[in-house]
Formats: sequence, structure tokens, C-alpha cells
Amino acid sequence: MSSTKTENSTPMKTFQILAISGSLRSRSSNLSLLKAAQQLAPENFQISFYGGLSQLPHFNPDCDTETPPVAVADLRAWLRASDGVIICTPEYAHGLPGTLKNALDWTVSSGEWMEKPVLILNASPVSHFAHDSLVEILTTIMARTISHRIGLSGNKMDELAMLDNTEITSKLIESLGELETALVVPELVEI
Amino acid sequence: MSSTKTENSTPMKTFQILAISGSLRSRSSNLSLLKAAQQLAPENFQISFYGGLSQLPHFNPDCDTETPPVAVADLRAWLRASDGVIICTPEYAHGLPGTLKNALDWTVSSGEWMEKPVLILNASPVSHFAHDSLVEILTTIMARTISHRIGLSGNKMDELAMLDNTEITSKLIESLGELETALVVPELVEI
Repeated sequence: MSSTKTENSTPMKTFQILAISGSLRSRSSNLSLLKAAQQLAPENFQISFYGGLSQLPHFNPDCDTETPPVAVADLRAWLRASDGVIICTPEYAHGLPGTLKNALDWTVSSGEWMEKPVLILNASPVSHFAHDSLVEILTTIMARTISHRIGLSGNKMDELAMLDNTEITSKLIESLGELETALVVPELVEI
Repeated sequence: MSSTKTENSTPMKTFQILAISGSLRSRSSNLSLLKAAQQLAPENFQISFYGGLSQLPHFNPDCDTETPPVAVADLRAWLRASDGVIICTPEYAHGLPGTLKNALDWTVSSGEWMEKPVLILNASPVSHFAHDSLVEILTTIMARTISHRIGLSGNKMDELAMLDNTEITSKLIESLGELETALVVPELVEI
């Protein structure tokens, strides 16, 4: 694992972070919010964007074997190589986008989410069904979820407009700080 | 529209019903339950099984144009041609299968579910997240939902075992009767 150094030369671990947008729309405000988060992230965050949602086959338990489809193996490899994940998703008809859930379906039994810190950003100021559902699903597959509502005002904001809005940037910085804390501090285990 | 006749020669409208299983598993108990329902359905139900879930592309709002992908146009045509729908779906990690939700995502804006009676069967004796989510989503896109928990004991039952179980057959007949009532009686509209 690569490392950076702070001013007093203490080595600082670099965290590999996978960003996933639940929308395939080219000008998605969810993707823009993730890009804004990338700009504001701690210097030891190395954020990569997962771009394979649309290449995944439809989940079929009959095909979830020891030799999964190539795109599924790729998704799982990205997750295994990531210390943490940030997800931002739209809501369609009071539910998660099927495409995003399909990706999660392929990883239910393979275990990559176990104990992984996941920051879930809600770009919407009003919708909550998809966000709540995502928290429930990720908690069920044993991820450590951190849930934040950013609440963009309308869907016309691009990344630069978000970075120019102090309310949004302060919420993003706060949520990224919580993700960093979760990455640094192992989960407390009750005995 | 074709019709059958009762003993007293009163014409009986034939209802076209589309059955959708949320699972792509070849030996899915959800598909078996739908096949059992087909055996027990009123004689004027003409039940067809939709088999195109896995052929649908991943939903992308940028592609939801006046000329949609062929598989999407086919799904919409099946829905338009159906008087009612029966859905039975598994639950994956406390959520709907992404594949089923993806099909719904392609029909949010095209309006085929408006006022359509939809019987939602829950095969599980314990799970409720996917079922509740499906009711919420279909209600949001203006379908008339009829929700029934059948509650199979384990997932080893095939269609014949279900048809041999009086508790299951009576629940299926009751739920199919409610669907028939919804098909015959227009929804009451409050003034």
C-alpha cells in the first residue's frame, strides 16, 4: 500500500476508495456530487470511479458459481481492492435503480462488503426510499454504513456549482471526515 | 378480445394476465408458485409468462426516448396487452432483485401500469422487505396492487407439491379471486 507523509513526517496510509454512482445518465447529479466529494476528500484518499454497472449481466443464482462472469469478477476485484466505498444514487419510483441493486445482488454471497466502511450520500432534498433501502441492504450484507443527506437544491447543479456552495461543501467535508474516521478506527466489537 | 361462455350463455370476458417471476433461477419457487396459480385461475384468465427480464438493457434515462430499445418496447407491449399482472419475486439482501426493478424502471415514465390490477404474491413465510418495496413502487406508478402472502414452507416445493397443499391452494384461489374482482369492478373514485 502506498503512503504519503504529513508535515511531521509521520507516514499516512493511503486509502483506496471506490466511488459508485447509481445512475447511468451521462450528466447525472449523483456522479457530479461524487466528483465534488473527490475534490474535497482528505489527501490520503485515492478515489476511483467504478464504471462497470451497465456491463454486469442480470443476476441469476444459477450463474453465481466459482467461475463467475468476467464483469462480476471485475466488480468483486474492485471491491476487494478498496478500503472504503462512496455511493450516491438517484431514486426511481420510490426504489433503488435496478441496475445498482443488480450489482449488489452479485456480491451478496461473495462477501466483499463485510466490515467495509461505506459512505452513502443522498443528493435529493426530499427522496428517502432509495437511500433508506440502500442503507438496509448494505447493513444486511455487513457493511459499515455512514449515511448523509446532502440535499441538492434541484438537479441542475454541476460539480463546480456544488463546490461553490458552502452548505454543500461543508456537508461533504463532514461526511468524508466520518468515512475517514471509520477507515482509521476499527469497528467496536461488543464482547 | 376473445370471450368464453358460462352455462347460461352469458358471455364472459377473457382477461389477459401477464405473470412475472422476479427470479431468473431455472428452478425458482417463485416461478413454480406462478405456475400453480395458473392451474387454479378462473377459466376466463388467459395467463402468459413474461420471459424477457434478462434481455432488458440496464435502465439509462438518456436512452428512454421515443424509440426505446427493442426489448423495452416488447416489455411495454406485453404490459399494454394485459388486463392484469401477477408478480412473485424473491428477496435478495432485504431488497428487490435488481433485475426485476430494472424492468420497472423502464416503465416508470411510459405509463403502462396506470390503473392496472396487479396481484403481488409473496412466496416467503418470513421475508417482507422486497414484497413491501414492490407494493410501494407499483403504488407509486399508479397500479392497483393486491398483496398476498402465501408463505411456502421452505423452498423445496415444486408446482405439484404446491397444488397438493390445501393451505397454499386456498390462499392462491382467494388471491386470484381478488384479482378477478379488481378486473371486473372499476376502481372506486372518490369525488
